[in-house]
Amino acid sequence: MARGLNRVYLIGTLTARPDMRYTPGGMAVLELTLAGNDLVQDETGIREIPWYHRVKLLGRQAERWGDALEAGQPLFVEGRLEYRTWEAEGQRKSIVEIRADFLDPLDGRQMETVEDARGQMRLRNALNQAILMGNLTRDAELRYTPQGTPVARMSLAVNERPRGQAGLGGEPRAASRREHWEEKTHFLEVQAWRDLAEWAGELRKGEPILVIGRLVNDSWTSSTGERRYLTRVEATRLERLTRGSGQAGGPRPQKDRTGGVDIEEGLEDFPPEEDLPF
Amino acid sequence: MARGLNRVYLIGTLTARPDMRYTPGGMAVLELTLAGNDLVQDETGIREIPWYHRVKLLGRQAERWGDALEAGQPLFVEGRLEYRTWEAEGQRKSIVEIRADFLDPLDGRQMETVEDARGQMRLRNALNQAILMGNLTRDAELRYTPQGTPVARMSLAVNERPRGQAGLGGEPRAASRREHWEEKTHFLEVQAWRDLAEWAGELRKGEPILVIGRLVNDSWTSSTGERRYLTRVEATRLERLTRGSGQAGGPRPQKDRTGGVDIEEGLEDFPPEEDLPF
Repeated sequence: MARGLNRVYLIGTLTARPDMRYTPGGMAVLELTLAGNDLVQDETGIREIPWYHRVKLLGRQAERWGDALEAGQPLFVEGRLEYRTWEAEGQRKSIVEIRADFLDPLDGRQMETVEDARGQMRLRNALNQAILMGNLTRDAELRYTPQGTPVARMSLAVNERPRGQAGLGGEPRAASRREHWEEKTHFLEVQAWRDLAEWAGELRKGEPILVIGRLVNDSWTSSTGERRYLTRVEATRLERLTRGSGQAGGPRPQKDRTGGVDIEEGLEDFPPEEDLPF
Repeated sequence: MARGLNRVYLIGTLTARPDMRYTPGGMAVLELTLAGNDLVQDETGIREIPWYHRVKLLGRQAERWGDALEAGQPLFVEGRLEYRTWEAEGQRKSIVEIRADFLDPLDGRQMETVEDARGQMRLRNALNQAILMGNLTRDAELRYTPQGTPVARMSLAVNERPRGQAGLGGEPRAASRREHWEEKTHFLEVQAWRDLAEWAGELRKGEPILVIGRLVNDSWTSSTGERRYLTRVEATRLERLTRGSGQAGGPRPQKDRTGGVDIEEGLEDFPPEEDLPF
């Protein structure tokens, strides 16, 4: 399985003063909503696309910023997508959240915002980037909108890995740290449009891919009448990873050093198809 | 001092089969040159700008990929900028290198390349992104080219921090790992052009900023006739960070939890002005 990569970078304005709460175990939790406009270029020209993303900050970082943030404050967020599951009324539920590792207030004096219908400030020229690496949990699915625009849907299994390894680049001490780490897999939804969708339509289950894109929120009403939300990545770039096959060195080791999960085994954690929009 | 952030993402093609070497201590070192074309949009339209970057891979990652890479192979690199100093002939020398934390071969079957004058393949539509956060070691310097184009130069002190903290988001066990970490500061050069340069011209020594941009290589001949090279970041976006001043919570703690260096103290590590081009 491809090593996992799961990074999110956002710049937006806070829609409201965030409330701090604590888990029963005493950990601080801060939930923020950031708002921004992305500049997106497609065949119709450059458009401004508004977004609102909820971001969760935990622990010491939450305590640090809990009382210091006001509505309208521009923030930089460095984080990742976090997939969580739980049981409710006998059903398996899941959610993808944006988890901030770090949060940095920005000087907004020269930043341009627009006021939305609720009187909230939304940052123009925001930043909204996600970089993911993982394996497809099923074949990519290519469909066409009623207007004939191609759209491809993919779901990606992304291994969490100790971030300590990233900075240590294979130094020996990284190994001893690994034993403190619990392997975890995030199941993340990816979407591509137009030419990229047609290219992606040929991707098959198990293939390791690199995704660069922006976070979008979809909401829809389920068959049971419930309102559902899903954070997914709208790809602006997709690349197939190889495992070095066909290269001089022959096939690479089967197992990445960050470990791996069986795709089949992971599938049961994935939201059932009928829960997904479209 | 602002917490440091130092991330580099590249996609390019290998110009040649890399050679593996070993340090006297037995650590594997792989040096690669990646080549790509960036699509850059400015007032003259969209231009393709070629780049060649040397990337260094150490330790286990170097051993893993040492024999498996051929000229023309497209690669994804996740890494950072590494500032190193040493003594040579009684002089203090320094260099900024691109250090890969991870390397992933990409499937190049549908990628477009151009052949350069040396017969090397250079990837079109490459990826070349750097994200930095740090403090200015001196006032930004605004100049004008003979054609009247504004250009600003900045130098940034970026604290290295244990990557383990990024993924652990303030969980308690992060604290106990910190003691294994040696604080290090990277001195990195940043450049901005046109409107962004004029905005940046007002930035002052010590200010914490966020930089998003692409890596460029400058080369020039020093006053002593030596050829010099410098990897710097050409900013596409710059933001001032605040420390929360003027916000409800009052001033933030003076010292970031990743520690800090005194800017003055760090300055002696910085390349002397006369060694810099222009």
